[in-house]
Amino acid sequence: MRRLSDGVEAALHCALVLAGLGEGRVLPGKALAELHGLSESYLLKHLRALAEAKAIEAAPGPRGGYRLARPPAEITLLDIVEAIDGREPAFTCREIRQRAPGKSTNPCDYKMECFIKTRMLAAETAWREALRAQTLADLVADGEHLIGEHNSKAVAEFIAKAQR
Amino acid sequence: MRRLSDGVEAALHCALVLAGLGEGRVLPGKALAELHGLSESYLLKHLRALAEAKAIEAAPGPRGGYRLARPPAEITLLDIVEAIDGREPAFTCREIRQRAPGKSTNPCDYKMECFIKTRMLAAETAWREALRAQTLADLVADGEHLIGEHNSKAVAEFIAKAQR
Ligand code: FES
Ligand code: FES
Repeated sequence: MRRLSDGVEAALHCALVLAGLGEGRVLPGKALAELHGLSESYLLKHLRALAEAKAIEAAPGPRGGYRLARPPAEITLLDIVEAIDGREPAFTCREIRQRAPGKSTNPCDYKMECFIKTRMLAAETAWREALRAQTLADLVADGEHLIGEHNSKAVAEFIAKAQR
Repeated sequence: MRRLSDGVEAALHCALVLAGLGEGRVLPGKALAELHGLSESYLLKHLRALAEAKAIEAAPGPRGGYRLARPPAEITLLDIVEAIDGREPAFTCREIRQRAPGKSTNPCDYKMECFIKTRMLAAETAWREALRAQTLADLVADGEHLIGEHNSKAVAEFIAKAQR
């Protein structure tokens, strides 16, 4: 499998942070960038992609910032991955089955997808389903028992100051 | 998911052809290239990768060529995909969890893999398992009922002439 866009890691971490904001609060892109040690321009590109995919939304204006567009349990890891990395299959089929000397040139003989392609895409579906079966709510739950006290506190303090 | 190397399609189709050779027969790389409408140098690179991964083997010499290294039921789609595309995970983690202002700088606090990474890699495992659950024998069986009569005959004739 080729590499996913490295924006996926940032997008997932940002979405997790936004899942922890208080009711009605937003966090500026600048704060999200600082919190993850990333340049603001790099991160804004990915935040915009998340907003386009309607996983997060931007509140505009000087008191503006980002928040989740719906409850964490309704945002899957697949939503986030596809927002950043697209929905293109990883497997590339160039219809090489049609190229052998003497092969039929009648397009009707190739109406059915090549069975190799079918099997490769079925495997990708397993990956997508595994991502679809996990939501931001699962990450929130993980974070509650897997992030150490010191780090939870550091992030909570940063967010308390930076949120609007 | 980013694109797999486009050599994966060629490698799978070549392996399927080799699975159909008679006992003790081999097929030259040149014939495999012609059969798939690919340049020989492009294909040889991928055949070499398959041989390095011990999915196929090369019989040297003027009467040489390629054959499977073991029975089709013992060569999984994952064997072929990893031979061409490597075993690197698709998800890239740059440990951005460690970068927040005020975060612990003690490496012991990060001994456990980030739970976001854990979940992303688990999804990739689902993809790999789906590829591991399918073998060349499945492709052979597909081919028997899914390749039309005209095309089966064309390929069989080509192979009968080209095999050694
Ligand atoms: S023709 Fe593309 S996978 Fe078979
Ligand atoms: S630090 Fe890399 S995925 Fe969390």
